[in-house]
Amino acid sequence: MSKGLPKRSENYSEWYNELVKKADLAENSAVRGCMVIKPYGFAIWEKMQQELDRMFKETGHQNAYFPLFVPKSLFEAEEQNAEGFAKECAVVTHYRLTNDPDNKSKLIVDPKARLEEELVVRPTSEAVIWNTYKNWIQSYRDLPLLINQWANVVRWEMRTRLFLRTAEFLWQEGHTAHATKDEAITETKQMLDVYAQFVEEFMGVKVLKGQKTESEKFAGAVDTLCIEAMMQDGKALQAGTSHFLGQNFAEAFDVKFSNNEGKLEYVWGTSWGVSTRLMGALIMAHSDDQGLVLPPKLAPIQVVIVPIFKGDDQLKQISEKADTITKELRSKGISVKYDDRSTHKPGWKFAEYELKGVPLRIAIGPKDMENGTVELARRDTKEKTVLQLEEAVAKIPELLETMQAEIFNRSKEFTSSNTHETDSWDEFKDIIENKGGFVSAHWDGTAETEDKIKELTKATIRCIPFDGDKTSGKCILTGNPSSQRVIFAKAY
Amino acid sequence: MSKGLPKRSENYSEWYNELVKKADLAENSAVRGCMVIKPYGFAIWEKMQQELDRMFKETGHQNAYFPLFVPKSLFEAEEQNAEGFAKECAVVTHYRLTNDPDNKSKLIVDPKARLEEELVVRPTSEAVIWNTYKNWIQSYRDLPLLINQWANVVRWEMRTRLFLRTAEFLWQEGHTAHATKDEAITETKQMLDVYAQFVEEFMGVKVLKGQKTESEKFAGAVDTLCIEAMMQDGKALQAGTSHFLGQNFAEAFDVKFSNNEGKLEYVWGTSWGVSTRLMGALIMAHSDDQGLVLPPKLAPIQVVIVPIFKGDDQLKQISEKADTITKELRSKGISVKYDDRSTHKPGWKFAEYELKGVPLRIAIGPKDMENGTVELARRDTKEKTVLQLEEAVAKIPELLETMQAEIFNRSKEFTSSNTHETDSWDEFKDIIENKGGFVSAHWDGTAETEDKIKELTKATIRCIPFDGDKTSGKCILTGNPSSQRVIFAKAY
Repeated sequence: MSKGLPKRSENYSEWYNELVKKADLAENSAVRGCMVIKPYGFAIWEKMQQELDRMFKETGHQNAYFPLFVPKSLFEAEEQNAEGFAKECAVVTHYRLTNDPDNKSKLIVDPKARLEEELVVRPTSEAVIWNTYKNWIQSYRDLPLLINQWANVVRWEMRTRLFLRTAEFLWQEGHTAHATKDEAITETKQMLDVYAQFVEEFMGVKVLKGQKTESEKFAGAVDTLCIEAMMQDGKALQAGTSHFLGQNFAEAFDVKFSNNEGKLEYVWGTSWGVSTRLMGALIMAHSDDQGLVLPPKLAPIQVVIVPIFKGDDQLKQISEKADTITKELRSKGISVKYDDRSTHKPGWKFAEYELKGVPLRIAIGPKDMENGTVELARRDTKEKTVLQLEEAVAKIPELLETMQAEIFNRSKEFTSSNTHETDSWDEFKDIIENKGGFVSAHWDGTAETEDKIKELTKATIRCIPFDGDKTSGKCILTGNPSSQRVIFAKAY
Repeated sequence: MSKGLPKRSENYSEWYNELVKKADLAENSAVRGCMVIKPYGFAIWEKMQQELDRMFKETGHQNAYFPLFVPKSLFEAEEQNAEGFAKECAVVTHYRLTNDPDNKSKLIVDPKARLEEELVVRPTSEAVIWNTYKNWIQSYRDLPLLINQWANVVRWEMRTRLFLRTAEFLWQEGHTAHATKDEAITETKQMLDVYAQFVEEFMGVKVLKGQKTESEKFAGAVDTLCIEAMMQDGKALQAGTSHFLGQNFAEAFDVKFSNNEGKLEYVWGTSWGVSTRLMGALIMAHSDDQGLVLPPKLAPIQVVIVPIFKGDDQLKQISEKADTITKELRSKGISVKYDDRSTHKPGWKFAEYELKGVPLRIAIGPKDMENGTVELARRDTKEKTVLQLEEAVAKIPELLETMQAEIFNRSKEFTSSNTHETDSWDEFKDIIENKGGFVSAHWDGTAETEDKIKELTKATIRCIPFDGDKTSGKCILTGNPSSQRVIFAKAY
């Protein structure tokens, strides 16, 4: 009854691809590299959005909306940023189609409708936003400017995978402007903390906070902070980034403010984002060979009720009970679905809701009706208990909280038990190749060594962790001095 | 203290443009025809979205997300639709920029990165969605399919105006698929009703429901239903449309289902949308020479409290009162802002919140502190009353409801008193040219007459109203037989 999912142990990658499709989360579209997010997948994303949006607002941010297109001249203004994204951007060159003179039912690009200046479909919005901020910021009184936008962005990736790497994806991007360097750094850290809190408390996924190396940082940033999460195959997934932009974009777009002494200074900036990639992390972190496992806080349906019946009379009686349960749970803010379809058998429904990761399932059959009981099944542990109906209903709110906590604890334990410290290059290679997970090791701080390690093992430096071991040592590859350990892993 | 807005009576069009900018709703961007929606404007749009989204979900719809790009071959599949949008679409032809060999700091479109097939930035998503539905629909059990998406779309308009007509805009587009013609027609009507209910109950704008003529209907639809609203200058604004698509898209994309007798049939479709254009309607319908007038249900700030003080001691005392009021109002679900900035004078603040359309203003000065009173001012009528503090607080929830109702009633009365019935061509021309508003007149049902009237008067047929006069008569222009009156107006 696994609905034909490959086993994780046999082919983790195929398991993920099939799970995304079979659980009705997303599918590939007719447009190369772009996905369709299906209603069930989108409902999970909406729950994520709601919580994140609330957290952004609670930390003083406001939403706004900036254009999809970036004129080429703006795009190239901040050179590092432009260079980082130029190789993968969709470019609009024309603004009209016209009938094909050779075939009237076909359309061709109208050669007479060429744009004077090409437009880049935003891969990120620093350029267009800082160009706008120039007009919004004159004085220190206009600062800080704390803005977020929910938007679609396009990066022309050559190898795409549903949620993890798609040409178009949905995200939020925060863009803030500050009077001082310290304030901008504080904001950068604050938003990383918001992301970490969201991913741990709502997604139930343990994250590691740290800083990216020079070669892994955002194009145009001074520093990039990140949260990294470990997937069940031991690979790392970058779940969110928060960038301290220094005055780079302020200089590129000439954004100055008069400080409280009346002197003109460049503004300090940050930007930070998470995307539909989080859906990939959510799916891969908890799910099993039967399908999705969703933390209750993000589950569109938290409890499903399945009647086991023969004939309309039995169904009617069970439905009355189900109705009582539904009302009581809903009054406690729990989302409930009652699936009384007679077109599908209970076993089929059980498998279906397992596949879709519904946290709790209540089954009610004729024997339960006699005994006043229900069968309560947890999706995460597959534990089943027969309980008195009232007891089950009373227990559910707390049980959902317990499940949320246990899902996170499992992620935490998994991450911890798959994080290895080593000072031996042979062991390093062995772990990366055979065990997977995070490796805490010394690095000499050079991009050359970083590249060499990547070349030899496919592992990259995921981050220089904030809470890591700060004692000095010798680089795992070169033996050169190292001031602290960093985290290596293969990554998505 | 009108913050330099032009008067409506002097230049309505300029008044609108300036109001949008000065009230911090939106501004033009560096990208031709694309707007930046500023935080205050976006907060209003978010409130609209929330209510609409709730209404869509209550009527059984689910959200999903489909790609931004439409491959040219899909775009041209439904011929009417393609023809309708081909002349105004942004076309992506390349997927990479590269360094300009003549100037290393500049970028050019990489001629080697030309797409095999051009991509149209979606002007609407029927093509990409129906191409997806083909795989989602096999049997009558898969129907109805009731999906909505919130998205950005691009139509390369030559003359743009903030919110009313922009190259990129935000909207929602519902796309549904049904087993029967009747069911699809019912859905089309239902969603028009949802729109009408939203615009009247939340935006406080009276609408007229009806059907578009052949020449005004959506490209690819069998029938287009619409709601039309009257702006203060007497011009009509199409506020929402709901299309019965027949089997047009099902045929173009080969979407068939097996009915309950096992026979293959084409699916019936609808689509329906409202956009950020509603912001334009909201602004133009109620606002005055001092600025925005917002219906309380959509106001991001419903009550603002302004202290009138000299020195810190007075401010401290007033702030304590303000704090009590704020807490009490918030506990009733009312959004409150307390503006205690000492950098701006009370008069400046009064003008500012008038400009921004905050429904209620509470002013508290030293005399009020002595008397236990506050001054309560309504934004819509500018009525001011001095009330005992407790009385004011107790009265506010009801007052906001009253204001909401009165704002709608004024719109209703304005629409009704500016709707004229005539059977005389001279009077028709006179009304359109000099009075404005809606004209209810007979039309012979031909596109030629419709075009001729537009050419002579700039008035178009806004709709064939559902509730209009159904008695027959003679066409206002040609004298030919007419089966019912239709509504003419100049329009946005």
